[in-house]
Amino acid sequence: MPLWRVFIFASVALNVAALPLLLHQYIVSHPHHPGVVSPDQQQHHAYAPQPGTSGAAASAPSTGKPAVTTDSVINLDHGDPTMFEAFWRETGDAAELVIPGWQTMSYFSDVGNVCWFMEPLFDQQVRRLHRTVGNAAVDGYHVLVGTGSTQLFMAALYALSPADANQPTSVVSTAPYYSSYPAVTDFLRSGLFRWAGDANSFVGDSYIELVCSPNNPDGAIRDAVLSSGAGKAVHDLAYYWPQYTPITRRADHDIMLFTVSKSTGHAGTRIGWALVKDREVARRMTKFVELNTIGVSKDSQLRAAKVLSAVSDGYDGGASRHRLFDFGRRKMVERWRMLREAAAASGAFSLPEETSGRCNFANETAANNPAFAWLRCDREDVEDCAGFLRGHKILTRSGNQFGADPRYVRVSMLDRDDAYDIFISRLASLK
Amino acid sequence: MPLWRVFIFASVALNVAALPLLLHQYIVSHPHHPGVVSPDQQQHHAYAPQPGTSGAAASAPSTGKPAVTTDSVINLDHGDPTMFEAFWRETGDAAELVIPGWQTMSYFSDVGNVCWFMEPLFDQQVRRLHRTVGNAAVDGYHVLVGTGSTQLFMAALYALSPADANQPTSVVSTAPYYSSYPAVTDFLRSGLFRWAGDANSFVGDSYIELVCSPNNPDGAIRDAVLSSGAGKAVHDLAYYWPQYTPITRRADHDIMLFTVSKSTGHAGTRIGWALVKDREVARRMTKFVELNTIGVSKDSQLRAAKVLSAVSDGYDGGASRHRLFDFGRRKMVERWRMLREAAAASGAFSLPEETSGRCNFANETAANNPAFAWLRCDREDVEDCAGFLRGHKILTRSGNQFGADPRYVRVSMLDRDDAYDIFISRLASLK
Repeated sequence: MPLWRVFIFASVALNVAALPLLLHQYIVSHPHHPGVVSPDQQQHHAYAPQPGTSGAAASAPSTGKPAVTTDSVINLDHGDPTMFEAFWRETGDAAELVIPGWQTMSYFSDVGNVCWFMEPLFDQQVRRLHRTVGNAAVDGYHVLVGTGSTQLFMAALYALSPADANQPTSVVSTAPYYSSYPAVTDFLRSGLFRWAGDANSFVGDSYIELVCSPNNPDGAIRDAVLSSGAGKAVHDLAYYWPQYTPITRRADHDIMLFTVSKSTGHAGTRIGWALVKDREVARRMTKFVELNTIGVSKDSQLRAAKVLSAVSDGYDGGASRHRLFDFGRRKMVERWRMLREAAAASGAFSLPEETSGRCNFANETAANNPAFAWLRCDREDVEDCAGFLRGHKILTRSGNQFGADPRYVRVSMLDRDDAYDIFISRLASLK
Repeated sequence: MPLWRVFIFASVALNVAALPLLLHQYIVSHPHHPGVVSPDQQQHHAYAPQPGTSGAAASAPSTGKPAVTTDSVINLDHGDPTMFEAFWRETGDAAELVIPGWQTMSYFSDVGNVCWFMEPLFDQQVRRLHRTVGNAAVDGYHVLVGTGSTQLFMAALYALSPADANQPTSVVSTAPYYSSYPAVTDFLRSGLFRWAGDANSFVGDSYIELVCSPNNPDGAIRDAVLSSGAGKAVHDLAYYWPQYTPITRRADHDIMLFTVSKSTGHAGTRIGWALVKDREVARRMTKFVELNTIGVSKDSQLRAAKVLSAVSDGYDGGASRHRLFDFGRRKMVERWRMLREAAAASGAFSLPEETSGRCNFANETAANNPAFAWLRCDREDVEDCAGFLRGHKILTRSGNQFGADPRYVRVSMLDRDDAYDIFISRLASLK
């Protein structure tokens, strides 16, 4: 047969062979495409039904609290940081993690490290981000990973309490203090440590003072109020990030606690870290995590490393156009403006005065925009502000849980736009 | 121009257009190809360097303990289940998880569930696997997720100890008992519960009895030895899986603990679960996890769901040719044969008698092949077996840590082949 017929035959054969591969290529590459990934795409990608998988197994991962409407109860009791989802949806696959079935199956991550269950990648990205932001010193510090900073808070109490003491060590913090401090300190009735209330009214030499700055619930910038040779301080710096407050100095305390929940918004990942100067304290804190949970999820450590890396990429001269702290700062400034306007329109509420300072990270003067609003109900007939707001389907946390006046409530400023907007319009309407 | 020329032109154009896509398709699909995925491929896949990423950030996730040579110290002290890596390397992407940057950022997973931080996918796959294996009842049970079963063990002690008791509840277990039970029970000196030793020597009505079956360290099949109206039992069924022991009945105790560490080998993922009958006990256990770590890593819950799904896929009529329990059973039978031969060749050691039973899952008679060897040193001049083996660069856990005779040691049977083979040859050479 003539050459052209042979050529046509070969061409048709090649095209037919190419077609399914072209289609497969399209399907495989689609979910990796930068930009918003829809739940359906994600579900297909991560949960493509396997042979024999029940229908349920093909359903999607959780999305947190249900979507709200104008009639919904708005739950701002917890500091659920879903505000940050919008940012991470825009980053495409920059913060996407792929975990093969055989990866990180061992209990051990770094047998040479005091924190033997910590992924080296996580350690590296924690140090890199602090160097990028300048909010905490890392040179000469041990990095420890925990299942959220709550576990590291307990680890610090364990490490700082003398094992041979015949009395539990007193744990104190200046009121208003984070409501979890007394609850977490006392729920197991430990003989090693015991909650002792407001640091300002504490009398004694031996104590552990918890210093939260910016402070949960009221956003105040805090320093330790106690000082004695036998006393220890634990600095909870969960909110010491540029979206919430000006970075005025590189913190260099003995024990500093951080968490991805509030820095990047990944609360569901349950990863926190501690920067610890003293090796023996680091060893005892590590021992606590070993006894409590035999280490920390490596999947979450690797995800946190990926997320922290994506944040640093936005600021250290990389090509990334995604800048988390710019996004967070913009949102917090806007939300605080809306809140102050709503409180003014209502006339029934007051808020802490706005403070500001020179931010070494942004290299400009920036306001303090706390992750929680410490709202006071000024109505004479309202002694329980949380109850009053609950009557209007707004859930907040009462001041009395923070060792303060129940005329105050703590309101999360980090929920999704839809819930926050409804909260604002309801608050403005309350007289 | 004649039609055939137009057709040739079109064919050539299409082929030229197809070529780069065909090549890209090959490259993209390569890491997904079933079979061994090299660390380099994995690193490229999950850790393709981002712009601005430091060199360190491009390094690979951890691989656990370093590789061993014939001169190495062989560490079989912990039950590090790296034996299972070989299986999961063969499953390709069946158990691979992809997590987009914006996924599961909330603290909440299922606000309607007692265990509000549990991913519904995890709950579904836990129930599916137990139905597939038949080792535990799930209907009428609450599933609770924990950061490994150790956290759920503490949660159970918290939930079962009366908060108003003026004395700590006694926690007991039949010796030899898992060395972590006394350590985890007492490290915080809780006023709620206290370790009280061997269940067989316990006197009293109010207690929590820990029943580990098959038992860590000796593999014995256990039932509760105490019974009183005020007493409670917690059944630790971490090893009640077909690779270790015949599945003789569907367990239906009040509180049953399981973990992926020993069922699938994913110790680094730190995921365990509890099956709990009583709703109030489930609520209090959930409260413990809330206070301890504010929930459990959702990344790891989703990974565990994917892994458990891949295991069930191998057995419920699906197309999957990968069968975890077949692999595990083969390995354990082989390793126990090697160990008994080595002990016989040495003459200096003895092992528990082999037991067997009818396995309802395998539908055949199967031997008990424990995840740990409870090895006794029979030499008259050796009273500290762990010390004797340490002298030969074999690290094990001494019997005295299990409330037993230091002539016994616990040896992990779940390490990688290279380490296990060196252990066997060394043991056989000891006289």
